[in-house]
Amino acid sequence: MFLDEMTMKEFEERVNDKSVVILPIGAVEEHGAHLPLCTDSVQPEYVVQEVAKRTGAFIAPMIKYGVCSSTKNFPGTISLSFDTLRSLIYDVTSELVRNGFRNIVILTGHAGRLHMAALRLAAQKVVDEHPETKVMVLSDYDIAYNLKFEEIPEGDGHSGMIETSRVMAVRGGLVKGKGEEHFPDFPRFRVVKDPERYFPSGVMGDPTKASKEFGERMNNAIIDELEALIKEMVGE
Amino acid sequence: MFLDEMTMKEFEERVNDKSVVILPIGAVEEHGAHLPLCTDSVQPEYVVQEVAKRTGAFIAPMIKYGVCSSTKNFPGTISLSFDTLRSLIYDVTSELVRNGFRNIVILTGHAGRLHMAALRLAAQKVVDEHPETKVMVLSDYDIAYNLKFEEIPEGDGHSGMIETSRVMAVRGGLVKGKGEEHFPDFPRFRVVKDPERYFPSGVMGDPTKASKEFGERMNNAIIDELEALIKEMVGE
Amino acid sequence: MFLDEMTMKEFEERVNDKSVVILPIGAVEEHGAHLPLCTDSVQPEYVVQEVAKRTGAFIAPMIKYGVCSSTKNFPGTISLSFDTLRSLIYDVTSELVRNGFRNIVILTGHAGRLHMAALRLAAQKVVDEHPETKVMVLSDYDIAYNLKFEEIPEGDGHSGMIETSRVMAVRGGLVKGKGEEHFPDFPRFRVVKDPERYFPSGVMGDPTKASKEFGERMNNAIIDELEALIKEMVGE
Amino acid sequence: MFLDEMTMKEFEERVNDKSVVILPIGAVEEHGAHLPLCTDSVQPEYVVQEVAKRTGAFIAPMIKYGVCSSTKNFPGTISLSFDTLRSLIYDVTSELVRNGFRNIVILTGHAGRLHMAALRLAAQKVVDEHPETKVMVLSDYDIAYNLKFEEIPEGDGHSGMIETSRVMAVRGGLVKGKGEEHFPDFPRFRVVKDPERYFPSGVMGDPTKASKEFGERMNNAIIDELEALIKEMVGE
Amino acid sequence: MFLDEMTMKEFEERVNDKSVVILPIGAVEEHGAHLPLCTDSVQPEYVVQEVAKRTGAFIAPMIKYGVCSSTKNFPGTISLSFDTLRSLIYDVTSELVRNGFRNIVILTGHAGRLHMAALRLAAQKVVDEHPETKVMVLSDYDIAYNLKFEEIPEGDGHSGMIETSRVMAVRGGLVKGKGEEHFPDFPRFRVVKDPERYFPSGVMGDPTKASKEFGERMNNAIIDELEALIKEMVGE
Amino acid sequence: MFLDEMTMKEFEERVNDKSVVILPIGAVEEHGAHLPLCTDSVQPEYVVQEVAKRTGAFIAPMIKYGVCSSTKNFPGTISLSFDTLRSLIYDVTSELVRNGFRNIVILTGHAGRLHMAALRLAAQKVVDEHPETKVMVLSDYDIAYNLKFEEIPEGDGHSGMIETSRVMAVRGGLVKGKGEEHFPDFPRFRVVKDPERYFPSGVMGDPTKASKEFGERMNNAIIDELEALIKEMVGE
Repeated sequence: MFLDEMTMKEFEERVNDKSVVILPIGAVEEHGAHLPLCTDSVQPEYVVQEVAKRTGAFIAPMIKYGVCSSTKNFPGTISLSFDTLRSLIYDVTSELVRNGFRNIVILTGHAGRLHMAALRLAAQKVVDEHPETKVMVLSDYDIAYNLKFEEIPEGDGHSGMIETSRVMAVRGGLVKGKGEEHFPDFPRFRVVKDPERYFPSGVMGDPTKASKEFGERMNNAIIDELEALIKEMVGE
Repeated sequence: MFLDEMTMKEFEERVNDKSVVILPIGAVEEHGAHLPLCTDSVQPEYVVQEVAKRTGAFIAPMIKYGVCSSTKNFPGTISLSFDTLRSLIYDVTSELVRNGFRNIVILTGHAGRLHMAALRLAAQKVVDEHPETKVMVLSDYDIAYNLKFEEIPEGDGHSGMIETSRVMAVRGGLVKGKGEEHFPDFPRFRVVKDPERYFPSGVMGDPTKASKEFGERMNNAIIDELEALIKEMVGE
Repeated sequence: MFLDEMTMKEFEERVNDKSVVILPIGAVEEHGAHLPLCTDSVQPEYVVQEVAKRTGAFIAPMIKYGVCSSTKNFPGTISLSFDTLRSLIYDVTSELVRNGFRNIVILTGHAGRLHMAALRLAAQKVVDEHPETKVMVLSDYDIAYNLKFEEIPEGDGHSGMIETSRVMAVRGGLVKGKGEEHFPDFPRFRVVKDPERYFPSGVMGDPTKASKEFGERMNNAIIDELEALIKEMVGE
Repeated sequence: MFLDEMTMKEFEERVNDKSVVILPIGAVEEHGAHLPLCTDSVQPEYVVQEVAKRTGAFIAPMIKYGVCSSTKNFPGTISLSFDTLRSLIYDVTSELVRNGFRNIVILTGHAGRLHMAALRLAAQKVVDEHPETKVMVLSDYDIAYNLKFEEIPEGDGHSGMIETSRVMAVRGGLVKGKGEEHFPDFPRFRVVKDPERYFPSGVMGDPTKASKEFGERMNNAIIDELEALIKEMVGE
Repeated sequence: MFLDEMTMKEFEERVNDKSVVILPIGAVEEHGAHLPLCTDSVQPEYVVQEVAKRTGAFIAPMIKYGVCSSTKNFPGTISLSFDTLRSLIYDVTSELVRNGFRNIVILTGHAGRLHMAALRLAAQKVVDEHPETKVMVLSDYDIAYNLKFEEIPEGDGHSGMIETSRVMAVRGGLVKGKGEEHFPDFPRFRVVKDPERYFPSGVMGDPTKASKEFGERMNNAIIDELEALIKEMVGE
Repeated sequence: MFLDEMTMKEFEERVNDKSVVILPIGAVEEHGAHLPLCTDSVQPEYVVQEVAKRTGAFIAPMIKYGVCSSTKNFPGTISLSFDTLRSLIYDVTSELVRNGFRNIVILTGHAGRLHMAALRLAAQKVVDEHPETKVMVLSDYDIAYNLKFEEIPEGDGHSGMIETSRVMAVRGGLVKGKGEEHFPDFPRFRVVKDPERYFPSGVMGDPTKASKEFGERMNNAIIDELEALIKEMVGE
């Protein structure tokens, strides 16, 4: 399952054209006073392991750093530059192709726009250079928002109900208290130097509505969907 | 109004802390068999001139090239690389700041995700280096989709009803026939080498529903909204 | 004539191995107190349209920004960095090749040494990668100076007699007064941080000698010559 | 201990001028037929946790990818480019400084020359920009070789006695068999395209001499020494 | 005189605000069948030493490589890329400034347009960053052509009368025969992939008219002029 | 012998598959109060000429600048950036390959770790692109230390006994006095901003033990060894 726990020989024998590899991406990012900095890492870490169990996918070593824009000035955030993340994903994905993988899933727990753009730009370069390779780039939050669960308050996002619930479900011990509701009012379409000014608590959403049960339901739904997406990709 | 039609002296006398400058961005991109390659240029070109009349904003010379991802392999598309667009916008915006502008609007007729990311990345660098400067980055399609006009078919996008209507309203002579409806079915979350495979006609939406009248209504609504956004920004 | 006013289909049908495309480059640059900032744009804009009428060449959307060295610290100048212009020209020219053009003319109204070097470096990369492609890089001032008209005072250059006359001929309404003669005395072979110190009026030459008639004569001679150059290139 | 398991608030309260943070670096690299691809990750992972227990140091999320030169063409290796690793370490280390750390230890399990150079180049840039910061860059193998244990055969290196013993001590279950002795004979001072030709088994040393006991002794000695180095650095 | 023949101490004691340093640049470039590849190096090497004797200028170690465009495909040419030369000159010149020099002359024996642009771009960056520094960038051929000696045939250039004469004067033993006259007819304003096609002998000019005496006269005139230029710069 | 003293024709006739070319690299770097800044240039300059006499190798023009880390803040040092040296070596080596060389020796008198890494990184890129080419990268100090002469004090390095002796042997006139012994005590494994603090005299070793005779013995041994290495490489 974990690609790097195999020996060279085991690895060589097991990889073939039908193999799937998942590259999980996380972040070190403030998530309010109640969630740990690894919030965006522990969610995909769990999801990916469950999906790997069901699909036999390989898991590449997780990259626990991402590009953080709106939280970059908060304590605890460790943001990569756009170009660094892009190069990193390009290098790792290219090497996965060199090693024989033809089905690659880049799954990220952090879903900021620039972060996603860096992943896509890297993946685009790889597929342009290796047209025989299929690459999927998504955040588990792309799936989560698509699910449209009714309980979720409108505008719930970073450190809100969904995220808090999901961390409660997988690493409950790292959650400290309930957090506070905050729905920020950013100046529309503006690129600002101090986004933290608009959500000083580091929260965008309503974590007080979170529950472990909801987190489990959400995680399971994401796992189901990701499993389906992978089967779809391999089956093409 | 057109910044570069002034002499150095006229320019120097008119620019002050309250001045607003709009930098319009277009694209050279296939838009089906019925719309011209300059579709993404003529829409903001019109909008920006109307807004400038109402607000007294300066208009910087338009950049008629952008980053085209899904259409990059079609005839007629002239796409910049991500890094070129980013550098270009960074350079021009920095120079606008050097010239005394503190209120800058980057308005783009093309709204691809990577294209938008390049604009935002450039703008972010400028505001980080010049914290006294306000920069807005948006597409007139960000406004268009927010308007949620009922007539618009779900999934209407590139070369569809809205876009065709808007070009009919401003440069009707360049529209050739009615186009054909097509709603592409891209493999979900995939970064592909040949996006054209999924919409060979170059259309994503339903241009057959387009009308000049609807285009005018849409354009006017966009102009109203952009005017409001600019006044909001300057008034802060 | 204007490449981007065609639809994808029209464009595809018309471009062939014999087609010529002209990419006009301008600048936003101070030109004294009497000429507009778009001086280097309006001259090639006119020339290119006349040449296109005579030769059937396509015109790519104009790039109205260039690299300005000696005027970079004046109000009104918006200079690109060397590397940005180089990338921009490389990207656009490469895409013109991808679209089937084999005869490409890059015509610039601005003729600074570094600006020209950026254009040439970009063009060199394209011809090295696409040996079947012919690329010409020139300024209409390369032609103008070669003509050696007797009326032109020695050392006449930026914002001087020729330039003022030519703008009078094509956009007379943008010319404000007659300007003042100034022949700067730069320290020889020096690369300086403050070139504006040597021509505070922004003029290098004698605009007071300018006339609309002379501008028309000059423009016509340039158009004739450019037409000849293009026919020479295609005929090879 | 694990920096990213804290909330923003916990993190902010605990970091001060005296805090030490360790950034562990690993690799995904062939290590013969008997050791796992994560060999260079599991060694520093263990060492760092023991050192953190003794010194109270924070542990930043491990980077499990490095620059692999001599093994880059083997199955299983996932190598970053030199510039990617350099940027990655620069970004993360700069952010650690932004977060208030003044004592930073970059500890890598992989010790290739170019890999080390990338780490040092990144660290150098950070200390030049933040002269108040102390940064140490080392491999646990820098310590291991300095210890000069008599049992170690001359020339023992990659996948040899030391490395096999240390992995047996910390993740014995991942070791498959005893490996085979091989001392490669590289052409002297040559930069070659196919280093694998000189050690097709992926081993440079004598893993058959390895034992869990020796691995434990070695690990403990490394931990002692790293503890001492950190105290030395903080005490200055 | 040769900067690097001093010890650190000698160097430190001698450099002051009034010191001048000359950085000579050459090239490894074909110069027909009669001149050596070091033609562009030996000319400035001689000139610089004579000027240093007269002015007390320091000589930095010569850079014997440049950017060769029109000769890049000939045997014997070793061309740098544009960006490499630019970085190299930037680094060396910046370090000369760090070492206390305020008067810097970059003198190149090779005078290709892109080569010169790389030097100027590097020098511009240095003066922009260190406004207290004066930098001159020139080729000894800038001076040679300005002298307008009557004997020189029109269009004489690369490996022609002037160049052959000058090498005869300083390193006569390296000249093999008289060479052959050739005045190439390049397609006007074209950027070509195979410039060698237009002058297969590697000559542009008339070397048969060369003489040692003329070379000495030319060299002396260049030395006089360079001496004057340096005194002008320091005296300002 | 000196590649650039030949004409294009001579060069073309002499180079073949068996030819060897040596690219000597030096540095401009402080070497205490007793050795000249060109210390790292004059040593390989001499060695290379002797080796060329014995082996018939070509000598490419020397690059007299390198990357200096620990001495970068001293007067007299002129350091290149890492990336500049890397590009420079890549360009020159690639051009040597274009010119037909298949056996390339990069010999550097300066042996700093980052300097060596830049050379290796450049060489690696060349051999990866031209697998038919053999490239050796070494410092004459790699050889010197391997010789393990008994007279050399432990820890003797920069400006110490070996280096002083070798310069006495080849350019004795540039040596000023005997220098002073100093064995610096750098903080272990630390990347520091001010390495000069640990050896203010610029010496690491014991120059007082130096002698011309020892220098000659050392130089001869290095020449013998380099001759052997080259024959080994060509003979493969």
